[in-house]
Amino acid sequence: MGDYKNMWENLDMDLDKHDILCSALPESFGEIYLTQKNRPESMNYFNYALAEVHGARIEELQKSKENGKKVVGTFCVFVPDEVIFAADAIGVGLCSGSQFWIEDGEKVLPRNLCPLVKAFVGAKISRTCPYFQSCNMLVGETTCDGKKKAYEILQEYMPIHVMDLPQMKKEKDFEQWQQEIKIFIKRMEELTQNKVTVKRLKEGIRLANRKRAVLKRLYDLRKNIPSPISGLDALLVSQVAFMDDPDRFITKTEQLCDELEERVKNQIPNTKKRIMITGTPMAIPNWKLHSIVEALDAEIVVEETCTGTRYFENQVSDKGNTLDELIKNIAQRYLNIHCACFTPNTGRMEDILEYVKEYKIDGVIYYNLSFCHTYAIEYKQVEKILKDKDIPLLNIETDYSEEDIGQIKTRIEAFLEMI
Amino acid sequence: MGDYKNMWENLDMDLDKHDILCSALPESFGEIYLTQKNRPESMNYFNYALAEVHGARIEELQKSKENGKKVVGTFCVFVPDEVIFAADAIGVGLCSGSQFWIEDGEKVLPRNLCPLVKAFVGAKISRTCPYFQSCNMLVGETTCDGKKKAYEILQEYMPIHVMDLPQMKKEKDFEQWQQEIKIFIKRMEELTQNKVTVKRLKEGIRLANRKRAVLKRLYDLRKNIPSPISGLDALLVSQVAFMDDPDRFITKTEQLCDELEERVKNQIPNTKKRIMITGTPMAIPNWKLHSIVEALDAEIVVEETCTGTRYFENQVSDKGNTLDELIKNIAQRYLNIHCACFTPNTGRMEDILEYVKEYKIDGVIYYNLSFCHTYAIEYKQVEKILKDKDIPLLNIETDYSEEDIGQIKTRIEAFLEMI
Repeated sequence: MGDYKNMWENLDMDLDKHDILCSALPESFGEIYLTQKNRPESMNYFNYALAEVHGARIEELQKSKENGKKVVGTFCVFVPDEVIFAADAIGVGLCSGSQFWIEDGEKVLPRNLCPLVKAFVGAKISRTCPYFQSCNMLVGETTCDGKKKAYEILQEYMPIHVMDLPQMKKEKDFEQWQQEIKIFIKRMEELTQNKVTVKRLKEGIRLANRKRAVLKRLYDLRKNIPSPISGLDALLVSQVAFMDDPDRFITKTEQLCDELEERVKNQIPNTKKRIMITGTPMAIPNWKLHSIVEALDAEIVVEETCTGTRYFENQVSDKGNTLDELIKNIAQRYLNIHCACFTPNTGRMEDILEYVKEYKIDGVIYYNLSFCHTYAIEYKQVEKILKDKDIPLLNIETDYSEEDIGQIKTRIEAFLEMI
Repeated sequence: MGDYKNMWENLDMDLDKHDILCSALPESFGEIYLTQKNRPESMNYFNYALAEVHGARIEELQKSKENGKKVVGTFCVFVPDEVIFAADAIGVGLCSGSQFWIEDGEKVLPRNLCPLVKAFVGAKISRTCPYFQSCNMLVGETTCDGKKKAYEILQEYMPIHVMDLPQMKKEKDFEQWQQEIKIFIKRMEELTQNKVTVKRLKEGIRLANRKRAVLKRLYDLRKNIPSPISGLDALLVSQVAFMDDPDRFITKTEQLCDELEERVKNQIPNTKKRIMITGTPMAIPNWKLHSIVEALDAEIVVEETCTGTRYFENQVSDKGNTLDELIKNIAQRYLNIHCACFTPNTGRMEDILEYVKEYKIDGVIYYNLSFCHTYAIEYKQVEKILKDKDIPLLNIETDYSEEDIGQIKTRIEAFLEMI
């Protein structure tokens, strides 16, 4: 990473603390990622993106801001990128995956709360995340109790707009979500002083669709036996997607997919167990579960998570000649994301069964961040549908700490032997 | 309690298990309640109501059902009683406050979940709660992640209608809540085959208002020094309110208030510390915190909880000549309940400060059921506003078990010495 001390200083960061964070990342990334054998050449870009995640990308954001652009931080796949693009702003995902931030998060939040929530609050209040420091506004949503209430604490530190996501999918909830998107558009227009026109919103929809399409292409390639890319690498691509410039991300991921397509032609089937992860998101640098699983005789070929399929499944139609029509299209796609925050959430059960077939899954690992009530309770339903089809399932509830790695490894070894 | 074996059998209850539950209650009630000195005579009715909570009241429900009435179970102060009354149905609160049900709840729910949620699910699946067994339908709401998802599990056992409560209080959220009330009315009409007319809804509003008014009268009496009624007794009255026939409850509580008014005339001020409880609800037979506090030199004079002020504050206007107008009035009152499920929830802060003055509070105890994220996170805000006014505050997070009673007692003793 280059010398960004001045930039970080200008962003009012806690430099000493940030140095500690930065010093740990390369080692852990090297151990987990760079020791993988036979990685695609095109992963070099994503290695670079990760190495420069607090450097070159932040520098880009500052340059864009100097040119009048606004940066908005988001925490959830429900916030429509289409609107952010249409307002000519930059969106960055602020979900945080490091144990480093937990201690600071716990200064203002209860300990028995989801690590992701504690980490993003800790990242802000410790001033050690340059993305938070670069944001002109945060965009929250009412997807879970933890996040919903944590935004009230963040609001003391910076402006935040919260979108009221309906908790059900009745007909009227789709209308209500359209209204929320309109309110969000208005807020983005105020922030950026750019008008969200039909033309711009269509362009935003197309850009977001292209981004989703390339991720879908990547995931489709993982359906091959063996997958031409490790679960770890695919996860890194998804994680970078939340931070990177969308056009560049699309180009680089297309290149990666081209290379993977070539690989597929010359592959010999392997006997590795094919694993699906289903559950809660994995934000940078949370590679804990993937690194454990793939150090054993198994490969993760799909993640039914918010940093997996829920991020890119289904497109937004760009058909329509009015803002209302386009907003309806956006609402339609987003409210059909099968998150456990909805009741009921039967669509997720259908997705999981579908992926089991499509990705030729040998076993499913239910990944639950500690204290995430919605996913923890939905486990019983997933257990039931998989039991009915005789698909092995393992439930892992964990946080970001390293204390339980040995225990999780033992459980996964036993699971792999069984399937 | 009389002999209700046949009735319980007809309700498909697990009689052996239910016997164990029933055998524990009188002893604990006797120890906590009947040892209180100088209780109001009129509390005899509430003693009786508690003693017959699984007996005489259930018998009444059966008789009403034989006469064609429907019984609906609710879990939350957001479900409008007005609608249930207008459909000529009977509403009963199913929130459960006993450790007895936790073990069964944990069979289908994660352990690290709010005890109230685990208890009500356990009560149903163990078939040991005659209220659940008497219900024709349950009415849930999307107030918290735990309840919202637990209803999906209950749905496997009986019909349930879930109301989608908005998570914010924007102008459009009031409209959305009116729509939800309309959907609820339709569902109640289907269930009961009774039309909810303007006349009936007005009568429902008036009955619910009378019930709220008498609770408000009781709480106003507690503003005296000393309070003419213990916190334990006031809590019991509130708890009975959720189960009892509303007309009889109103009559009996008016009688109690008459007696308390007489008491007030002849009282000598005491020096007991006046405590406010703020936080999560206390369902029957959860008397844990009150019994600890009032065994010391202190009296609980107000509960800013769902089994306290949130249940009765503010009335519904009965002005209006159309269903739409009345529904708007209902939506207005209910969406103005200051529950931590909303973001933001600044109204609660105002209420707490107001009650500190009105009830002449010496210290506040923040009562949080374990793993309740919304109230746990909101603690920081309550801490801040009380610190600004120099009002002592103690945070108690606990469940229904008896294990931490000693520790809580020690902390409260220290707290009372300090204030």
